[in-house]
Amino acid sequence: MKYAKRMNHIKASEIREILKITENPEVISFAGGLPAPELFPIEEIKRINEIVLEEDGQKALQYTTTEGYQPLRAWIANRMKKRLQTSFDADKILITHGSQQALDLSGKVFLDEGDYVVCESPTYLAAISAFKMYGAKFIEIDCDDTGMDMDALEEQLKQNQKIKYIYVIPDFQNPTGRTWSLEKRKRIAQLSNMYDVPIIEDNPYGELRFEGEYLPSIASFDKKGTCIVTGTFSKTYCPGYRIGWVAANSDLIKQYVLVKQGSDLQCNTMSQLAIAKFVELYDLDAHIQTITKVYKRRRDLAVQTMHQAFPKNVHFTEPEGGLFAWVELPEHINARDVLDTCLASNIAFVPGGSFFPNGGHENTFRINFSNMSEDRIVEGLTKLGDILNQFV
Amino acid sequence: MKYAKRMNHIKASEIREILKITENPEVISFAGGLPAPELFPIEEIKRINEIVLEEDGQKALQYTTTEGYQPLRAWIANRMKKRLQTSFDADKILITHGSQQALDLSGKVFLDEGDYVVCESPTYLAAISAFKMYGAKFIEIDCDDTGMDMDALEEQLKQNQKIKYIYVIPDFQNPTGRTWSLEKRKRIAQLSNMYDVPIIEDNPYGELRFEGEYLPSIASFDKKGTCIVTGTFSKTYCPGYRIGWVAANSDLIKQYVLVKQGSDLQCNTMSQLAIAKFVELYDLDAHIQTITKVYKRRRDLAVQTMHQAFPKNVHFTEPEGGLFAWVELPEHINARDVLDTCLASNIAFVPGGSFFPNGGHENTFRINFSNMSEDRIVEGLTKLGDILNQFV
Repeated sequence: MKYAKRMNHIKASEIREILKITENPEVISFAGGLPAPELFPIEEIKRINEIVLEEDGQKALQYTTTEGYQPLRAWIANRMKKRLQTSFDADKILITHGSQQALDLSGKVFLDEGDYVVCESPTYLAAISAFKMYGAKFIEIDCDDTGMDMDALEEQLKQNQKIKYIYVIPDFQNPTGRTWSLEKRKRIAQLSNMYDVPIIEDNPYGELRFEGEYLPSIASFDKKGTCIVTGTFSKTYCPGYRIGWVAANSDLIKQYVLVKQGSDLQCNTMSQLAIAKFVELYDLDAHIQTITKVYKRRRDLAVQTMHQAFPKNVHFTEPEGGLFAWVELPEHINARDVLDTCLASNIAFVPGGSFFPNGGHENTFRINFSNMSEDRIVEGLTKLGDILNQFV
Repeated sequence: MKYAKRMNHIKASEIREILKITENPEVISFAGGLPAPELFPIEEIKRINEIVLEEDGQKALQYTTTEGYQPLRAWIANRMKKRLQTSFDADKILITHGSQQALDLSGKVFLDEGDYVVCESPTYLAAISAFKMYGAKFIEIDCDDTGMDMDALEEQLKQNQKIKYIYVIPDFQNPTGRTWSLEKRKRIAQLSNMYDVPIIEDNPYGELRFEGEYLPSIASFDKKGTCIVTGTFSKTYCPGYRIGWVAANSDLIKQYVLVKQGSDLQCNTMSQLAIAKFVELYDLDAHIQTITKVYKRRRDLAVQTMHQAFPKNVHFTEPEGGLFAWVELPEHINARDVLDTCLASNIAFVPGGSFFPNGGHENTFRINFSNMSEDRIVEGLTKLGDILNQFV
């Protein structure tokens, strides 16, 4: 019995493995990217399920088209127009099994063994694994609080013919929490158009803004149809339904539909109808406001506690939204060693090394602030500060 | 912008395209593999959804492990032991997005560009597309009413080192409706063990037996852990939930979990909890009996009508279960021409050519008998017989 070559360089997601540890309720977990379950609109979902099954039960439980449920696609298109200033219509949208599947399908559509993906340094861990399965190599571009270094990006686009796409998360990035400036959004769209290299703009957190103005998406500056956008209901509604999407120009979305057909035929019909009914009958914006209010308080407490408890030579981001902050330790400290000590005190986070596809940067880690209650955030980060003080 | 090489040889599933035509309610469709929606246990599902959200709402809507919901995996393991005489425990089972995803993941785990898959001739169309995406070539083995030609299979296993696995559907095969004999099940398990070439035993229809005895699965004769089994709730419960599974030995299932992580993290949590609750509170066997009773009547009527209406030189299978029968026309007739004439009379089926990965056999087509009412089956197949009489 012989596996495919790709299996030699695939390893278990460190996050999914740490999540198993954090199933122990005593652990204060800053790992994972879990939304706060106490905010799920359970009563509303109960009612919605009943209505959908009452009105349209046979349809809700049957197969549907690969593209997905038309009213949901139409709602998404409108939402994107309003929030991201894009111009994708419903027929340019494919419903996917979370935005994670949109990443997997992107690999399938674009990547041959040895092709290059350009990404932010660091970038989303599970995007790295998804793309690696199709044999991708990675070019990491340095980032600051305004986004990618655009000159470094252009240099790469000029010299490397095997770059298949650029993968970015411009809003409240995972893992850093950073948000790109308007100028860099315009510029990267231009570069993508000029060099005819697609951008995959992953946007799972954009709706979770605590302060400041929503920024238009990179795709809103696209003149030639080279920008692809992914989205999800995991953070604004619930992750358990696994409903996300990918938006792209007509020819591109056809390719995505083709590979989706072979991968799993279609997404959960019932969940698609249920979300469409929810956004019809309830005010999603009000629900998102409820979520962001809670997350903002948690972010505030997390940042405040880190300022108080962390050693002065430890640096961290202060994100304007999303779920994550990013911590940089002095270079000689390995965050995996810190994690070992923390786990013994029932505190968990994700070491940062895994977020760099080409390795290194072991002195970093990611903090999730959305999933724990306020007192546990303070308690956990205070303890974490004590432990960090033993290391610096 | 440049796609991956695989996109050159992927085309839209003929079935999914025909399904779009059959959304017109005037069409009598023998295409698709749709279960009868009037048999979905809608009232029970309504109640189950309420209970699950009441008892365990936060959990049902949150992320869960990649492997899937433990009580559901345990139920599946027991069911397989009872029905298929396998010995997989719960920890050898991964929940997948329908059994289609189990096929896609199989390609990901095993296939490098240019590897060979051995399959029945003909075989399941969407398995062909799933495996082709990973660069598979196909060796088709002739079949009769007892299954694959075992000597031809052994000949291939002896001489071809690049065979990665054997893909078979031994119960009420898609597209032919045929079921393998006990002897051939034993023999192929031996061959798989002897040549160390895994079998992927796809079993979406096995529960839908209209008469005769359930046969043990190929995997029940496996002595060395080379048999992999896939299953689904799509035909016994509802397809809209997209919940299936793959069962395999410990090392293998770990590989499947790894590729599932990168593909879409996990399956729909709510749907997993809901199915687990359904099989706990209701009698799935009674529900399957209800389904098979209806399908048996439809199969009887379909076979009877084909005997009456089809020309004598047209041959067809008379399956003991499942959803499909297979029709062979005289060699000079192209089923796609017949389909064109049929569509003009609002009758649809799937031409057989697509079920042969290496092409040919255009004189065949597939009939689904599960989805139309009794009178429409008689009406449609009678008209189809009239049209066939114009061709022979």
